[in-house]
Amino acid sequence: MVRRNAFYAQSGGVTAVINASACGVIQTSRENSTVINGVIAGRNGIIGALTEDLIDTSKEPNEAIAGLRYTPSGAFGSCRYKLQNLNKDQSEYDRLLDVFEAHDIRYFFYNGGGDSQDTTNKISQLADLRGYPLSCIGIPKTVDNDLPMTDNSPGFGSVAKYVAVSIREAGYDVASMSKTSTKVFVLEVMGRHAGWIAAAAGLAQEQPNDAPHLILFPEISFEESDFISRVENCVAKHGYCAIVVSEGIRNAKGDFVADSGSRDAFGHAQLGGVAPVIATLIERRLGLKYHWAVADYLQRAARHIASKTDVEQAYALGCAAVNMALAGKTAVMPTIERLSDDPYRWSVGEARLEDVANIEKILPRNFITEDGYGITPPCRRYLSPLIAGEDYPPYRNGLPNYVRLKNTPLAKRLSTSFNLT
Amino acid sequence: MVRRNAFYAQSGGVTAVINASACGVIQTSRENSTVINGVIAGRNGIIGALTEDLIDTSKEPNEAIAGLRYTPSGAFGSCRYKLQNLNKDQSEYDRLLDVFEAHDIRYFFYNGGGDSQDTTNKISQLADLRGYPLSCIGIPKTVDNDLPMTDNSPGFGSVAKYVAVSIREAGYDVASMSKTSTKVFVLEVMGRHAGWIAAAAGLAQEQPNDAPHLILFPEISFEESDFISRVENCVAKHGYCAIVVSEGIRNAKGDFVADSGSRDAFGHAQLGGVAPVIATLIERRLGLKYHWAVADYLQRAARHIASKTDVEQAYALGCAAVNMALAGKTAVMPTIERLSDDPYRWSVGEARLEDVANIEKILPRNFITEDGYGITPPCRRYLSPLIAGEDYPPYRNGLPNYVRLKNTPLAKRLSTSFNLT
Repeated sequence: MVRRNAFYAQSGGVTAVINASACGVIQTSRENSTVINGVIAGRNGIIGALTEDLIDTSKEPNEAIAGLRYTPSGAFGSCRYKLQNLNKDQSEYDRLLDVFEAHDIRYFFYNGGGDSQDTTNKISQLADLRGYPLSCIGIPKTVDNDLPMTDNSPGFGSVAKYVAVSIREAGYDVASMSKTSTKVFVLEVMGRHAGWIAAAAGLAQEQPNDAPHLILFPEISFEESDFISRVENCVAKHGYCAIVVSEGIRNAKGDFVADSGSRDAFGHAQLGGVAPVIATLIERRLGLKYHWAVADYLQRAARHIASKTDVEQAYALGCAAVNMALAGKTAVMPTIERLSDDPYRWSVGEARLEDVANIEKILPRNFITEDGYGITPPCRRYLSPLIAGEDYPPYRNGLPNYVRLKNTPLAKRLSTSFNLT
Repeated sequence: MVRRNAFYAQSGGVTAVINASACGVIQTSRENSTVINGVIAGRNGIIGALTEDLIDTSKEPNEAIAGLRYTPSGAFGSCRYKLQNLNKDQSEYDRLLDVFEAHDIRYFFYNGGGDSQDTTNKISQLADLRGYPLSCIGIPKTVDNDLPMTDNSPGFGSVAKYVAVSIREAGYDVASMSKTSTKVFVLEVMGRHAGWIAAAAGLAQEQPNDAPHLILFPEISFEESDFISRVENCVAKHGYCAIVVSEGIRNAKGDFVADSGSRDAFGHAQLGGVAPVIATLIERRLGLKYHWAVADYLQRAARHIASKTDVEQAYALGCAAVNMALAGKTAVMPTIERLSDDPYRWSVGEARLEDVANIEKILPRNFITEDGYGITPPCRRYLSPLIAGEDYPPYRNGLPNYVRLKNTPLAKRLSTSFNLT
């Protein structure tokens, strides 16, 4: 049998476990070396393929590849780059196929969110049209958990665990201080359109007096007066109030609360940071002492507190993607199928990319309490297994001993270069 | 032998390991139950003593007390409350001694920073003056690491580990994204006067291209143009720039950079958040895409990633405080004495409270590189052992299973109440 190459690229915002998927792809490819010659990675995602800036992963020893399982971020570099609309401009797709052909690539693995699955689907169509045999497999990844067709997306469970752990810890802290000092704590978490991450913070609350007391979801319009009266009641009842706010909350007019007119010393709009907006609002309306935190990249990079479930699923989907390709499939994506909530059992399923592309799965309304500030029992049942288990990385000198690959460049084979749009 | 009571209170900002000291105090007291009748805790710190709002820790089972070792925050509540100047107003000190006498308290353990050690010292003096036999022992605690006479302070090592782990993880993330997206990441850490925490983030940098590339210390005056040119050079050289900024940095005029004139939509000063100030400055001057995070309470509450060294030292100093009291000592504080850097060895020493009170230990200039943006080898040698080792808490349902005490009130014995100033 002629051995062919595989191509793997990471796309969009990285996560604590996207490298675990890469680990699954590369290890499973190495186990099938009679069929797969080697895995070529795109440096900085699909841009690496377009510009023929390719990485020869065969230069990495097995131990380094194994280390990807516990290393956050995108080991080959990722990118935010959306390919042209295929109906308007086919040149990028043609270029990809040229590069793939030049490097004898017959397996294409694209690890990303909705946009990337759409791209993978289109490349599959074009390869078909051209008669170039290419197995195109998407591998889901997104901290936002907004991909359809899969019960959950790798990357989400670890962010979920991080935010739930963090608000529990900060809640304990504020409770200690509230008598004479801080009474309100606001933690801003990711989620511009969907409140999955904010909802996960709700797992930390087991008793009514536990943090978080109030969650602000992007799905629920922010009503200032109602919110303020709830903060006031919470402090009266529990002595303090711990709040989790999604970066994407909007007011009744549909404007982002984070963009509500803050100006720096020079009069420029102060972008980002809905936590300080909420905290200072509370201070102005209620005169309560506050603290706020913005977790930002810390939450999605926090491999040190990754969910074991998440790591295992990310790895399993990487392996499954290769097995699907070896089975001759294309234009599909391995998914997580939930078999039962408690005990939690899952298996790997399969979705067609055309059913995945460009659809956002938002938090169902019945996952949010009627008052709009908390999560319901069905939401807990869904989320709880996703943060289960710890999967600590190895440490050296008190710090996680993450791997750094050599990322050896592969010699170019095309004489043409390509200008990115 | 007549059994007497001990009093324990937590003071000021809480930490990930102050409860480990409480654990040491209570366990060692229980082991010496022929001498120490029981440990009475102040609810919300010294305020609990002043208002006779006391907690009977004997109601807590041994397992709950053992759980304090891995539970962040102040289990009995802390407070920010500075006693009156003894020379001007003695009433608070008299009240404390009245409460102690009413509850047969002969051992006073005060777990806090410089102010608290000063208070402990004064109470000792006044008890002497009154002829009331009271052993007054301070137990050091501060995330700021600014206490003198001790090699380091419990609470610091765990914050240090948290910020070093966090900037390493975020650095990996930004490195992956930098080709087409975020090129600059700014992490704000605690430290209003002393740069110990910011310095600890520097441990994450093992190679010149590792995060953090630039550290902004409160000890070094912030020079905008110099800083901007360094960010520019860093991005040119490494493709990205990861920055750690201490909340307390000041410009050449001595003003906090965080207060540099930001105004909210209503024209109110936007306090706090030097990270967004630095990030937007870079965007304005260099046009680079940025992200920023403010760790705030997350850093000092992060028991999930506590330093093993820190936990062991916090616990040991709690035990040592009781042993000092039993040895008849007063007006002293157990300290950490460093015996060697590598291998790291330490023992418990002893300092007189009068030598500790109200002195701030700032970062020595030779711990900061000459250019003012990094840490030196002596600084690494000092800091490295303090973040060594992991000491994970137990988990339940994917979350740290921290204890919550019953905090049973002790019946009041005084007919008089006390109004706090």
